[in-house]
Amino acid sequence: MHAYRSHTCAELNSSNVGDTVRLSGWVHRVRDHGGILFIDLRDHYGVTQVLCDPDSPVFAEMEKVRSEWCIRIDGNVKARDPELVNAKLPTGEIEVFVRDLEVLGAADELPLIVFGDQEYPEETRLKYRFLDLRREQMQDNMKLRSDVVMSMRKRMWVQGFREHQTPIITASSPEGARDFLVPSRLHPGKFYALPQAPQQFKQLMMVAGFDKYFQIAPCFRDEDPRADRSPTDFYQLDLEMSFVTQQDVFDTIQPVLAGVFEEFGGGRKVDQDWPQISYADAAKWYGSDKPDLRNPIKMQEVSEHFRGSGFAIFAKLLEQDGTEVRAIPAPTGGGRKFCDRMNKFAQEQGLPGMGYIFWREKTADSVAQELGIKVKEAQAKLKSGEVEGGMEAAGPLAKNIGPERTEAIRQQLGLGVGDAAFFLGGKPKAFEAVAGRARDVIGKELKLLDEDRFAFAWIVDFPIFEADEETGKVDFEHNPFSMPQGGMDALNGDPLAVKGFQYDLACNGYELVSGAIRNHKPDVMLKAFEIAGYDEAEVKSRFGALYKAFQYGAPPHGGCAAGVDRIVMLLADQQNIREVMMFPMNQRAEDLMMNAPSDPSSDQLMELGLRVIPQD
Amino acid sequence: MHAYRSHTCAELNSSNVGDTVRLSGWVHRVRDHGGILFIDLRDHYGVTQVLCDPDSPVFAEMEKVRSEWCIRIDGNVKARDPELVNAKLPTGEIEVFVRDLEVLGAADELPLIVFGDQEYPEETRLKYRFLDLRREQMQDNMKLRSDVVMSMRKRMWVQGFREHQTPIITASSPEGARDFLVPSRLHPGKFYALPQAPQQFKQLMMVAGFDKYFQIAPCFRDEDPRADRSPTDFYQLDLEMSFVTQQDVFDTIQPVLAGVFEEFGGGRKVDQDWPQISYADAAKWYGSDKPDLRNPIKMQEVSEHFRGSGFAIFAKLLEQDGTEVRAIPAPTGGGRKFCDRMNKFAQEQGLPGMGYIFWREKTADSVAQELGIKVKEAQAKLKSGEVEGGMEAAGPLAKNIGPERTEAIRQQLGLGVGDAAFFLGGKPKAFEAVAGRARDVIGKELKLLDEDRFAFAWIVDFPIFEADEETGKVDFEHNPFSMPQGGMDALNGDPLAVKGFQYDLACNGYELVSGAIRNHKPDVMLKAFEIAGYDEAEVKSRFGALYKAFQYGAPPHGGCAAGVDRIVMLLADQQNIREVMMFPMNQRAEDLMMNAPSDPSSDQLMELGLRVIPQD
Repeated sequence: MHAYRSHTCAELNSSNVGDTVRLSGWVHRVRDHGGILFIDLRDHYGVTQVLCDPDSPVFAEMEKVRSEWCIRIDGNVKARDPELVNAKLPTGEIEVFVRDLEVLGAADELPLIVFGDQEYPEETRLKYRFLDLRREQMQDNMKLRSDVVMSMRKRMWVQGFREHQTPIITASSPEGARDFLVPSRLHPGKFYALPQAPQQFKQLMMVAGFDKYFQIAPCFRDEDPRADRSPTDFYQLDLEMSFVTQQDVFDTIQPVLAGVFEEFGGGRKVDQDWPQISYADAAKWYGSDKPDLRNPIKMQEVSEHFRGSGFAIFAKLLEQDGTEVRAIPAPTGGGRKFCDRMNKFAQEQGLPGMGYIFWREKTADSVAQELGIKVKEAQAKLKSGEVEGGMEAAGPLAKNIGPERTEAIRQQLGLGVGDAAFFLGGKPKAFEAVAGRARDVIGKELKLLDEDRFAFAWIVDFPIFEADEETGKVDFEHNPFSMPQGGMDALNGDPLAVKGFQYDLACNGYELVSGAIRNHKPDVMLKAFEIAGYDEAEVKSRFGALYKAFQYGAPPHGGCAAGVDRIVMLLADQQNIREVMMFPMNQRAEDLMMNAPSDPSSDQLMELGLRVIPQD
Repeated sequence: MHAYRSHTCAELNSSNVGDTVRLSGWVHRVRDHGGILFIDLRDHYGVTQVLCDPDSPVFAEMEKVRSEWCIRIDGNVKARDPELVNAKLPTGEIEVFVRDLEVLGAADELPLIVFGDQEYPEETRLKYRFLDLRREQMQDNMKLRSDVVMSMRKRMWVQGFREHQTPIITASSPEGARDFLVPSRLHPGKFYALPQAPQQFKQLMMVAGFDKYFQIAPCFRDEDPRADRSPTDFYQLDLEMSFVTQQDVFDTIQPVLAGVFEEFGGGRKVDQDWPQISYADAAKWYGSDKPDLRNPIKMQEVSEHFRGSGFAIFAKLLEQDGTEVRAIPAPTGGGRKFCDRMNKFAQEQGLPGMGYIFWREKTADSVAQELGIKVKEAQAKLKSGEVEGGMEAAGPLAKNIGPERTEAIRQQLGLGVGDAAFFLGGKPKAFEAVAGRARDVIGKELKLLDEDRFAFAWIVDFPIFEADEETGKVDFEHNPFSMPQGGMDALNGDPLAVKGFQYDLACNGYELVSGAIRNHKPDVMLKAFEIAGYDEAEVKSRFGALYKAFQYGAPPHGGCAAGVDRIVMLLADQQNIREVMMFPMNQRAEDLMMNAPSDPSSDQLMELGLRVIPQD
């Protein structure tokens, strides 16, 4: 018999009754039923109930066994009594009577309990990650992650892509975030950097003729941590293709991701229609470049209804250039309490507030208030038909602009009794982000979202450049690698009007993919950099390899990168990326289990030619 | 029609004749046949011949096109004349007459030519890697690498393994080689390290109950470069299993690797029998712990034949403790010239020399010399039978020890006329490495190897400890993670006699795999470290996470890691690992294309709290 197991803990069933078996695993739970010990023995695959009583030669040893001890047992498979069969468990028909026991690894007192759902501070979980990972949810998350990544790989191969590995110890490439540096020992004083993404390498591969590349690529950004981002390394499904248009990239990645979401979404609905929404429209409609399209709320411009209206704040505001008033329709939000809460939300977010209108069935109360009469009289008037019943618009804003404008707004927004609308005015840039967040909160509070759904949208036509609000200095909006729509001609016009073949994929409010058709033309590249204030020498020093490569027959190419951790997080229905990483850092970029970062030895510093500057 | 191509350059055949097509690719070669331009247009998939003459509206533009320009052409598919069909080319039945041309990317004068097999200095190749990679051999190597890695993955999944990613920015773990360090910005003065291997993480995963893990894992060692090792990052097929014995690990990895070698070996023979050879026997028989078993030479101890013999050097030497004489049989090596050359080789390797005997047909010359008579007389004596003909042993050694001992040696080694044997004496440690190298050279010079074969052997029973030759201090021979055979009992005996459940896989003279059953018992771990001179505090500080994890129900586990780059190198029949890496560093750990390592900015150093010590 094998030294450790004849079967896993998920394998035995009634066909094994009478067999002598050997199992290894962890003591999940021990129950002592008056001299009979019942132990759930757990391994990676499942749980088998084993039992032991004083008839067993190892009963005395078995009594000492505690939760999370790793043990090996030999025993006989017995059928359970029919009334004790556990249909939920694959091994629920049987139990194993223990005749021999070997303690493979005993356990100290546990800092966290593996069975059940008890919550522990993240500090404890990360410090004892090897125990935390034994919990069913974490086992499931890690299996899911592994399965998702393999599925991505297979789907990419099916599409004719090959995976290639790019260097991890490489050159510093100032393309947005902060690099992690690696001091060189052979060249003291010089540093390598870890790649923020394989961006330059994948483009160089296209120049080298590789046509269709992908990689489940580790990426490194020294960024301040947040819930959906790892503070050190994270993974992207990175891909690049030659001789393609933007639509080709979409047509490539959509079946991969849709397939993965179908396969691992646990039955949640996966939208097959992925609309393409311009960056400008996304900002206008959703106040975000990663809108949650499960939320049916679509904002609209309603400036005309306020221009010259009795609502002086908006009327005045609209006299300034570049201002607008936008409405956030809130179906079923028609109540003063809710509207006031949302107004307060806007104030907390730094705006003066959000005006609102809501529509309700006319009541005796409101008629009484309107006409300055008693409620009883109002009731009578409503009953007699002297005052017409039906819908009325409430809220101070409605009063200020009057019934006609109010009704026009209602009709434009398609709202009715029980609904509300919120209004924000000014320069869009100043309120769009808050409007977007308000849309999220409204959608969630009013339960407008189908939570069991994945809704995707391509956000396209990103601007290439942006101007600093204070200095007016023009710089790249995103990264300098994207091809401007209209090429050189466009760059000779207003830079801020130039859009790029650059795109993101939004899903349920997260950015899952980012990509572009690249600027592979050296002259167009130089011009774009010139606009952003960099001369040729700067281009050569910052992106020397790429710039040089483009002098030797560069093909048109483009691609994208999808955030693996984030996709798994969505599929696992988790709110935090650390739940789908095996050994994550904490929020302070520390590994509490491995004790990283730590002090270097003086020998190490000496070899690297470095000195640590004492901190205050 | 698509913006860039209706077909790839490998797709068109006679069924497309008459079609209007669009192709994109690189100008492989241009030939001007008296006013008709023939261009081999190349993409990742193949080559299509396109042609152009003054009838084409783009003839003038086409004349400007040069090698390695990236172009898009439109044209009509024509059948080639029967005598011009190129059966070797998938597109050899057709050619495309060009009607439209777009230059997608022109090329400067080329620092290296893509077509043909011209050799370039490595410096040039690495600096212009994006051109070097366009060459057919490099395209093939990279495709092979990608295919091998995917095949490994699939084979691991078939065996029930899941791939999990382990951290890349993590803690320093002093387990053999030198770490690359990464300074922390959030914790100035502290450093992360890049993992030399996911060793500790995979063991922690086993403690966490993951049972069967693998990863195509990037590994980082700051080592001085050599041909079969990358100076920065390299990849391993890393795996670990719980509840297994050494044989289980062998049974897992053998079908994976044998399968990969069968699949990608290009028809070369793949040995199915992988013998298990102890570390001690490998040293004795092959002078190496990674023997090339295609070489049939097996060394043997022949001390008894020299003890008390007339060859004083060996006879005296054998009076000392721990000395031996070993023979390297050299079938077909029986000639003085060859034997002298090998003797010289041993001298160059720092030994006094290698004595030898070779066996030959007795000749009139040798009889004349032996008996001090004239050659003619000797001829007569041979002819008459007065002197017996047949085999004779030549070489000074044979004379010294006399015919009986010489014959006994010959019989032990199974040699005959035309063969030779070389002899080395002393303490085995002092000559084994040279003996191993001599075995290699002899095998190669005498063409004893079947080059078209992959021969594998498991080298097992590595010692756990070794003693420093000068100080006698005992330290770990390899790494401290292996389970000693015999467990605690063995550690209580002579440490230098303790063998580990530790193993390597050798193939054709390379170490392809290294692994062990791990020491998962905290008390045995502490004892092993104690023998190597480390106390508990040291264990906790060096391997704190693992040591702590072992207190919480650790399962028995083991695994191995296979060198991906080296395997691909063997399959691609290359001598240098850089031929199978997309963007390798040079031998000085520099990336000449990306310009790494480079000087950090003072801002970067400031953020990290570091100062560079000026070098002399």
